[in-house]
Amino acid sequence: MSNLPRITTFGWVPEFARGLVRDLRARWAFEEVGQAYEVDLIRDAKTDEHKAHQPFGQVPFYRDEEIEIFESGAIVLRIAERWGSGGAGKLLPDDAAGRMHAIQWMLAALNSVEPPLLGVIINDRFEADKPWADERRPVARAYLDARLRDLTARLGDKDWLERDGFTIGDLMMVTVLRPLRIPRVLDDFPTLAAYVARGEARPAFQKALADHLAVFEHPVAA
Amino acid sequence: MSNLPRITTFGWVPEFARGLVRDLRARWAFEEVGQAYEVDLIRDAKTDEHKAHQPFGQVPFYRDEEIEIFESGAIVLRIAERWGSGGAGKLLPDDAAGRMHAIQWMLAALNSVEPPLLGVIINDRFEADKPWADERRPVARAYLDARLRDLTARLGDKDWLERDGFTIGDLMMVTVLRPLRIPRVLDDFPTLAAYVARGEARPAFQKALADHLAVFEHPVAA
Repeated sequence: MSNLPRITTFGWVPEFARGLVRDLRARWAFEEVGQAYEVDLIRDAKTDEHKAHQPFGQVPFYRDEEIEIFESGAIVLRIAERWGSGGAGKLLPDDAAGRMHAIQWMLAALNSVEPPLLGVIINDRFEADKPWADERRPVARAYLDARLRDLTARLGDKDWLERDGFTIGDLMMVTVLRPLRIPRVLDDFPTLAAYVARGEARPAFQKALADHLAVFEHPVAA
Repeated sequence: MSNLPRITTFGWVPEFARGLVRDLRARWAFEEVGQAYEVDLIRDAKTDEHKAHQPFGQVPFYRDEEIEIFESGAIVLRIAERWGSGGAGKLLPDDAAGRMHAIQWMLAALNSVEPPLLGVIINDRFEADKPWADERRPVARAYLDARLRDLTARLGDKDWLERDGFTIGDLMMVTVLRPLRIPRVLDDFPTLAAYVARGEARPAFQKALADHLAVFEHPVAA
């Protein structure tokens, strides 16, 4: 086994989830900082072995020679702190204010934007056959749309959330927003759609997405 | 104006939210590390002035002589990094693994536990008068209960999430779980109820809660 940092993720996911599994966040961070890594694939999810590494039976989880962690936000922060300071691959500014602003936006993506976003995804996909799905949709959308309007206003005409350039805050916000293409929510928020497209146009994202999708060309049976 | 760090929060909230507003997280962190702070109160929420500091019109937001940030997770991390290293008030272990484990649990609280928890709170409180609320409740509970079972298993018989002692991960997880008393969900998870009670028994929490509640004895009119 190599000494490279390793992530573990699912070897198979349903069609709709391909391109959206959270190992993509870790892969993107590795590509931005130019750090090679290894990937281990899980065949059977939510086993005792899986939960020993990730208590909720989710992916990804991560280890390097020093630490083992889960939660994609923690993993992206670790990659940025370990390999992403200084140089072209900087994901965290060196100054205290810039660094905390990047972390603040990562947390805003995970705790202020993703929960109402999941509300819409759950309604439209996982509760689509429930009797309340159609009537509840505008209610779930209202929570989300308020956040997306506020995010649009704050982003304004900037390329990234802070003027100093792309950080882990943008990496997380872009990956949080991407699933909104499926229920076509981003059609109503062109400023955010353009922001997501800018993130996806980065070579590091393109490489990460290609490697993520390649797993499913020869999926590991569940 | 003093040079102390400052948080801004609401000067008035509805009865059910008292004791649960997120400024409590920042107050608790300040008390754990023994750092004095100032509190500014907002009279009118979601104004342009408010959103200039907190783009989503939420609370708390924070500033010290070096930075201004929002998101309670970022604020708690800032307090821990700035004033909480070493000594009795340590909220972040000094070693890389212990530090990242604390951050990992903070993120698990905010992104793996709080979203399904909000699903139940939203159903039971904010959608209680909707035609689907009763029928949807067990569906919302199922998402949440799976996470709470997993969290119970991982906590086991430990006092805190990691054996090294109380960290920002526990501070965040306890404050995330507390609202579950209202819909009586914690009655079904006695291990987690005892964990929350251990957090609430800490003198720093008691002081923070008392100061938080004192605001509403002479509330600032909205």
